[in-house]
Amino acid sequence: MHLIGGVEAGGTKFVCAIGTGPEDLERVSFPTTTPEETIGRAIDFFRERPRIDALGIASFGPVDLRPESATYGYITSTPKEGWSNTDIAGTLGRALAVPVTIDTDVNAAALAEARWGAAQGVSDVVYLTIGTGIGGGALVGGRLIHGLVHPEMGHMRIPHDRVVDPFAGSCVFHGDCLEGLAAGPAIEKRWGVTARELAPDHAAWRLEARYLAAGIANLVCTLSPQLILMGGGVMDQAHLFPLIREEMCEAVNGYVAIPEIGPPLLGSNTGVLGAIAAVGS
Amino acid sequence: MHLIGGVEAGGTKFVCAIGTGPEDLERVSFPTTTPEETIGRAIDFFRERPRIDALGIASFGPVDLRPESATYGYITSTPKEGWSNTDIAGTLGRALAVPVTIDTDVNAAALAEARWGAAQGVSDVVYLTIGTGIGGGALVGGRLIHGLVHPEMGHMRIPHDRVVDPFAGSCVFHGDCLEGLAAGPAIEKRWGVTARELAPDHAAWRLEARYLAAGIANLVCTLSPQLILMGGGVMDQAHLFPLIREEMCEAVNGYVAIPEIGPPLLGSNTGVLGAIAAVGS
Repeated sequence: MHLIGGVEAGGTKFVCAIGTGPEDLERVSFPTTTPEETIGRAIDFFRERPRIDALGIASFGPVDLRPESATYGYITSTPKEGWSNTDIAGTLGRALAVPVTIDTDVNAAALAEARWGAAQGVSDVVYLTIGTGIGGGALVGGRLIHGLVHPEMGHMRIPHDRVVDPFAGSCVFHGDCLEGLAAGPAIEKRWGVTARELAPDHAAWRLEARYLAAGIANLVCTLSPQLILMGGGVMDQAHLFPLIREEMCEAVNGYVAIPEIGPPLLGSNTGVLGAIAAVGS
Repeated sequence: MHLIGGVEAGGTKFVCAIGTGPEDLERVSFPTTTPEETIGRAIDFFRERPRIDALGIASFGPVDLRPESATYGYITSTPKEGWSNTDIAGTLGRALAVPVTIDTDVNAAALAEARWGAAQGVSDVVYLTIGTGIGGGALVGGRLIHGLVHPEMGHMRIPHDRVVDPFAGSCVFHGDCLEGLAAGPAIEKRWGVTARELAPDHAAWRLEARYLAAGIANLVCTLSPQLILMGGGVMDQAHLFPLIREEMCEAVNGYVAIPEIGPPLLGSNTGVLGAIAAVGS
C-alpha cells in the first residue's frame, strides 16, 4: 500500500501528517515562522518516519497551480512577510524525493469534506472559511476549480449600506469587499471587541449574517452548489447558521433554490486531510 | 456519420438547425409563441428533413437538468406566460424518437464558443449575455457547471451607490441585483431611452461598465476563468469593452489576475451551435 503524507501550510501554523484518512492520522503541528525554518521542520517530520510515496500540500495563497508554469507550486504574491515567491512544493518534493500535489487550503478542505466529512456523495460543494480572512474552495461536478489562478471568494464585492453600517471595511486591497466587511478583523474593528466577546443577541450578528448571505447568494448564482460548508473562527458562533439561512431567503427571494448550509465535520484536520486527499485526486 | 439536430429555445425566438458546425448549418428561426405551436414548428422542421440521430436543446431557463428528476428536461418556473412546466426535452424527444441533451442557452453558448469560437482551447471560460436580462454559463476545467440547478449569474448582488445612482433597479425578484441594475431594461428605465439611443460618451456607459465590472470581478473571484465572453444586445456597443476593462482594474485593485474579456465570435448561431455541441459532450 502507498503511504501518503500531507502538509497543511497555514499562515499561522503548519500541520504535517501521514495516514490514509481521519482514523489513522499521525500528525504534528508547529507555528509558521520563516519559510526555511518552517519547511525545514516539515521535512524533518517526514524524514524521521517511514518513507512516504507521495506528498500533498494544502497551502495558504496565492499559489501557482498551473503545471506548465515556471513557478508551479510557489506561494506567489502573499502579503505574509518573507513568504513571497516561496517554492514550497519544489523544496519539499526535492528534499523528500517524492511527487508533490499542491492546492489551496480551501480547495483541499472541500476535497477532504467530500471524501470523509459533511459533503460525502456531493458533486457540487463550496467550502468557506470565515476567520482572519475569508477564503473559499469548491468542487464543480466533483472536480476542484483552478482556472487562471484559483478562486479568491473572500474578495467578492457585495452591497454595503453605509447608512446602516458606516464601517469602511478592513480589506487592504478593496476596503468593503466580503472579507473587508465580514471577516474576524472587520467585526473587531467595527464593534471594538472580538467576535467571541459579542453576545449572541448583539446586532453585530444580524449584520454579519446579511453580509455572509450576500456572498453566499452570489456563490449560489454562479456555482449552483448542492451544499455550502462554512467553517473558521467566526463560524464557531453556531447561532450564525440560522441567521444566515434567514438572510439567504431574503437575498434570494424565491428566485433560485437555496442549497443546504452547514458546518464542516473534520475540524482542525480538514486542511491536512485535504492535502492527503489531493494526492491522486 | 451521425446527423445532429439543435434547437435554441429562446424567450423571443426559436432557432432549429441540422449540421456539424458553423460551416454547414441548415437553420430556420421563428418567433416563440405558445409551447404547442412553437415546439410543433420545431418538430415539423426536423420531420421534413433527413432523420437526425440525436437532438441538443439550448433553452431559456430555469430548466431542470437533473437526469434523476421526474421533471428532467422541463422548463420549470419561468415567468414567461404559458411556458411554466413545459416538458420541452420530452416532447421533442418523443416526437422525433431521438435521444435528447438539454442545457441552458448560456451554458450551451459557452460550449459552442469553446468548440468553434473565441474560447477554443480554453478550459475555464464564462459566457455572459447582457440583453433583456443577464445570464451566464461557464466551463470549469472543460466541463459545464450544473450543480443543484444551474447558474443564474444575472442575479448576483453587487454594490449599488444610491447617491450616484438613485435608480432602484428593475429586477422583479431582487430590485438592484446585477440584472436589475445593468440589463437593457434597467438602462432604458434609468435614462428614459434605449441603450442604442445613448451616445458613446454618455455617462450611462461608465456606470454600466462599473456594474458589469463588479459582476465580472465576482465571477473572477469565484471561477478564476481564463476568458470572459460578453455578448447580447447591450454589448453591441463595442466601446463598453475598454470601459469594462478599466473598471475591472479598479474593482480588483491588483489583487487577482484579470482574465481576457472580449466578445463571442459565433453571433446569432451561438445558441443553436451550443445545442449541437451539447450532444455527446
